[in-house]
Amino acid sequence: MSLINRQIQLASRPAGEPSAENFRLVSTPVPALAEGQVLVRNHYLSLDPYMRGRMNEGKSYAQPQPLDEVMIGGTVGEVVASRNEHFQVGDKVVGMGGWQEYQLVDASQRGVLQKVDTTHIPLSAYLGAVGMPGVTAWYGLTQIIAPKAGETVVVSAASGAVGGAVGQLAKVRGARAVGIAGGADKCRYVVEELGFDACIDYKEHRDARSLSAALKSACPNGIDGYFENVGGMILDAVMLRANAFSRVAMCGMISGYNGEPIPMSAPQLILVNRMKIEGFIVSEHMELWPAALKELGGLVATGKLKYRESVAQGLENAPEAFLGLLKGRNFGKQLVGLI
Amino acid sequence: MSLINRQIQLASRPAGEPSAENFRLVSTPVPALAEGQVLVRNHYLSLDPYMRGRMNEGKSYAQPQPLDEVMIGGTVGEVVASRNEHFQVGDKVVGMGGWQEYQLVDASQRGVLQKVDTTHIPLSAYLGAVGMPGVTAWYGLTQIIAPKAGETVVVSAASGAVGGAVGQLAKVRGARAVGIAGGADKCRYVVEELGFDACIDYKEHRDARSLSAALKSACPNGIDGYFENVGGMILDAVMLRANAFSRVAMCGMISGYNGEPIPMSAPQLILVNRMKIEGFIVSEHMELWPAALKELGGLVATGKLKYRESVAQGLENAPEAFLGLLKGRNFGKQLVGLI
Repeated sequence: MSLINRQIQLASRPAGEPSAENFRLVSTPVPALAEGQVLVRNHYLSLDPYMRGRMNEGKSYAQPQPLDEVMIGGTVGEVVASRNEHFQVGDKVVGMGGWQEYQLVDASQRGVLQKVDTTHIPLSAYLGAVGMPGVTAWYGLTQIIAPKAGETVVVSAASGAVGGAVGQLAKVRGARAVGIAGGADKCRYVVEELGFDACIDYKEHRDARSLSAALKSACPNGIDGYFENVGGMILDAVMLRANAFSRVAMCGMISGYNGEPIPMSAPQLILVNRMKIEGFIVSEHMELWPAALKELGGLVATGKLKYRESVAQGLENAPEAFLGLLKGRNFGKQLVGLI
Repeated sequence: MSLINRQIQLASRPAGEPSAENFRLVSTPVPALAEGQVLVRNHYLSLDPYMRGRMNEGKSYAQPQPLDEVMIGGTVGEVVASRNEHFQVGDKVVGMGGWQEYQLVDASQRGVLQKVDTTHIPLSAYLGAVGMPGVTAWYGLTQIIAPKAGETVVVSAASGAVGGAVGQLAKVRGARAVGIAGGADKCRYVVEELGFDACIDYKEHRDARSLSAALKSACPNGIDGYFENVGGMILDAVMLRANAFSRVAMCGMISGYNGEPIPMSAPQLILVNRMKIEGFIVSEHMELWPAALKELGGLVATGKLKYRESVAQGLENAPEAFLGLLKGRNFGKQLVGLI
């Protein structure tokens, strides 16, 4: 066979806001399989905010994405050829296939490729609610915020893959869930479809004081837990409503991903309110993934954990979809359809 | 008997920096003792930065200091009259006597007055290393920073009552202790007398970048724990050198006590470095005081925990000494001698 793989590489590093010119589409033949290898036809590519950080050269929590190599990314797909006894043609798998149509992997390394069951859970969900974003939500909520019944949990980017799961997991635990999202459509979805108690449209608020007033109405008993995906003015506003002994799970600060300064205006509130603020990266807590995926998978299979997907069809559209994600143009989990 | 008690009251709330005019010296006769009451002649008054927060009206973690009442404060002294079976004339006691020479208390309330043993520990130490400042250091260091042997712990206001204990307790646990203090004299004392590994004079650094470079030299393996007493530029500089999974115990932010803005420049470092930042108030953790005081008392009695005191003699000098404390003019634990 003479398959052609198309992939998207990082061509250059952005100075500030990234653009389509930072990416390059490359076609190369798929090599023959060596012993132990598996060839996967990727069905969906996951686009996630963390990828923006990897495009920079500077120090971050992970190695930068190398130039002229395929962009990093989570994928789901189907095994189409195998020289590995643990995988058969037709197996559905999740892995870190990158921004490409085919993925040739040495599947004898544990964990690079996971077989998944699509009887009750759609394949794409393994990139969202039952994948890294879902586990991210689960970790920050259960291990850092740890809400008690009756407490109030606020989450920013509430209509996204992570944020939507945070609020629904909080509701399962008897907490009040309040979202912050951009635009009336997203806010309506967060309340009516995801079942949050309230959602605030941050675009209606020009500063932290105004947003803080809206939070006061939506959180009459104050804020006990905050799951941070955005940073900047939104964090400032939440801190003005934080209760004593409140917890902030710092998951992302997308508002500063292009290098804009995003100072925290009043860190003395950490002391005044005896807050705990903790940053985390879900890939550093692999020991908790099985417990998280068990709960998430059960909730998705029984329809109790809802989510929405935005699918950009075709690998060539991945860069535009990614740039849109960084601007909040996606609605729910952003995927790229590859078949 | 017709004793006269002199006390200092809060006369007005400061707008920004406080001044001597915010205080008022008042003389009143000591009333006769009722059943259950104890009269204490205070020997020392403790001056502490937290008192600045109490002078404000706004929301804080504690009730504001009421106007026209005696200023709140910790004291040590001697029982001079008692109508309570648990206290005898001559007992040495620690309590919250306030800025006054005599203290008449209903000692049947548990905990308002504690008898202390001055055989091996000087009475004044119960206001410092074996009192609230010592327990504050102990709590933040052991319960939040929890250093492992070989880790590096940094503390600001390192020559003060809290900071000095933080570094010495860190050394006991096998950690590297690095102080930040104002001026060459204080830095020399922190290293030569308290036994810190290094101390940086923040007055030699005009901005966070410069201080951060000095921290890099003093902390060749980065910073694993930071005990925050100051805030502002110093916190920014420390965060630039924070290691992955580092912990910040937020105890005080004296640089913002007069209402100056003290933004945290780069909160995204909390995420990048997976930091944990936690604010605390030691009086909310009374269950840990016995364990803390046991260690602190043992270390002081055996000369392993060193400290220095600045004593301003005479109640009438308390306001000036307090204003000096807020400007860092004290050297070690600031006391007012009352006899």
